[in-house]
Amino acid sequence: MDIGEFGLIARLMGEAKARDGVVVAIGDDAAVVKVTPDCNVVFTCDCMVEDVHFLRTATGYNVGYKLMASNISDIAAMGGRPRYAVITLVTPADEEVAWLEDIYTGIKACAAQYGCQVVGGDTSRGPKVVLSVAMLGEVLPGREMLRSGAQPGDLVCVSGPLGASHAGLQVELGRIDASAACASEARLRHFRPVVPVDLAVTLGELGCRCANDISDGLASEAREIAVASRVGLELDSALLPIAPEALAIAHALGEKPGDYALYGGEEYALLFCVPALLSAEVCASYPAVQIIGRVTDDEGVFLLHQGERERLRAAYTHFD
Amino acid sequence: MDIGEFGLIARLMGEAKARDGVVVAIGDDAAVVKVTPDCNVVFTCDCMVEDVHFLRTATGYNVGYKLMASNISDIAAMGGRPRYAVITLVTPADEEVAWLEDIYTGIKACAAQYGCQVVGGDTSRGPKVVLSVAMLGEVLPGREMLRSGAQPGDLVCVSGPLGASHAGLQVELGRIDASAACASEARLRHFRPVVPVDLAVTLGELGCRCANDISDGLASEAREIAVASRVGLELDSALLPIAPEALAIAHALGEKPGDYALYGGEEYALLFCVPALLSAEVCASYPAVQIIGRVTDDEGVFLLHQGERERLRAAYTHFD
Repeated sequence: MDIGEFGLIARLMGEAKARDGVVVAIGDDAAVVKVTPDCNVVFTCDCMVEDVHFLRTATGYNVGYKLMASNISDIAAMGGRPRYAVITLVTPADEEVAWLEDIYTGIKACAAQYGCQVVGGDTSRGPKVVLSVAMLGEVLPGREMLRSGAQPGDLVCVSGPLGASHAGLQVELGRIDASAACASEARLRHFRPVVPVDLAVTLGELGCRCANDISDGLASEAREIAVASRVGLELDSALLPIAPEALAIAHALGEKPGDYALYGGEEYALLFCVPALLSAEVCASYPAVQIIGRVTDDEGVFLLHQGERERLRAAYTHFD
Repeated sequence: MDIGEFGLIARLMGEAKARDGVVVAIGDDAAVVKVTPDCNVVFTCDCMVEDVHFLRTATGYNVGYKLMASNISDIAAMGGRPRYAVITLVTPADEEVAWLEDIYTGIKACAAQYGCQVVGGDTSRGPKVVLSVAMLGEVLPGREMLRSGAQPGDLVCVSGPLGASHAGLQVELGRIDASAACASEARLRHFRPVVPVDLAVTLGELGCRCANDISDGLASEAREIAVASRVGLELDSALLPIAPEALAIAHALGEKPGDYALYGGEEYALLFCVPALLSAEVCASYPAVQIIGRVTDDEGVFLLHQGERERLRAAYTHFD
């Protein structure tokens, strides 16, 4: 199999015509479906596989916490508030129950943090641990934020500093000593991402129509918005907020902190596009929010860097 | 690990207190959660793992169809109408895409059959194929059917003849020749179960408060109702409706057709308990429905057989 994750989903799903009750179908962070005329439900799933998304050296708590956070992030990126989750667990028959319990402790801790409840699940035997979470969130009709909602003239914003998760990954991979400056903070940011749920719901209510969560890196998410909205996203490298953990660890490794911010995955920060007037209101209420560029009417993602305007390359997928 | 599936889920979930918005939590066919005051959502997930729930000799179509049917059955058993699904696919990188496409064709065919739409999903690499479906259904508040809803004096009913799926499994396992009488029909019943969604929704609307889908065998499901409702279920062996496929194949193998009906899994027929007056109305509208016993005020599951009343043994779980 040699097609990217989105290519595979698209090919398997075939022509996913939005029919009765489907407000947003396959191809965004989550689906939005109508349940009653007054309430839309945001519906998503996200999985983690042993040796692919995590190693057995990780604590169960961290594995569970992060899996839950990634689903909460998908719901929030649509403007939804996470409410309920069900969990599928596949595990070898001889797996250590204490480790599995630790996973569920992490799952429940993250769920509680964001007001979400685990209401059911299924378990099965299998050769490796696979965890899949499906989650429901609520969103008021018309308040959804879609990848396709960017308009030329909008400002491009992120919810906060970037690159800390990628920095933490370098610690976890043993590329840098765990006692180095910022190493433990970076590792924490990698395993316990903070999802800006309140900001996301507020954005949807204020009239923001375009957001994406940064799961595969800023450059990749920006490209998804550009393609879906048929616009250009012009980012200014001087405006990129870089997390102190990313600065410290990239410097220690002789790498570029800006690359951590542009290409680092699993940040679960929010990338969004809003009219200029609205951005001022948002920045006033949420000081961590940073304007990083603007939406143009050509198509693609561009980086302004030392007076040059260059096209940004796309980022990795799970099926690279 | 040496604890049954329900034991494992219960242990991992810990104290699942039904909090704000949770109408039915862990421990029934599906969870029921409140979205708006006027609408409850039924929410469930069910997975299939290669070499555990299916072999690579099965067609992708059949694997996908059956996985979807098992989720639809869980929703229906709560009185819900299936509406939306998301799908997690874990697959080896070198898996044949045509086989995966066949799975999704089966999934979509079954979904279309029951008015359900696939609205999203996630994919990942992994050592074996794992498929997990999470599904949303709708149910009007107060119309849910729970395992705990049986009352002494109720009649015990099933939606139709039993044992065909187990008969089909014998064909699939090669215990009986594929050209034997009823073999192809039995195999079809095994892979393409018919889920009585309309009956289930009607039952909930008419006032039936107790149902369970027969995924692990009639004896096992009856026991779940008896435990949850703290009642006895007294089944009359002479009243058990046995599918012609089960009769033919059990006889050919020198086995008891009654055992196929009592212990055969993956039937996805509905077991339900209703007041006698209501049962008459239901039987008149749904001729396949069969009264098979009554609810008593002792606790357990009993079989009346040739004038004897014996306690029925429980059935298998995935973690036997």
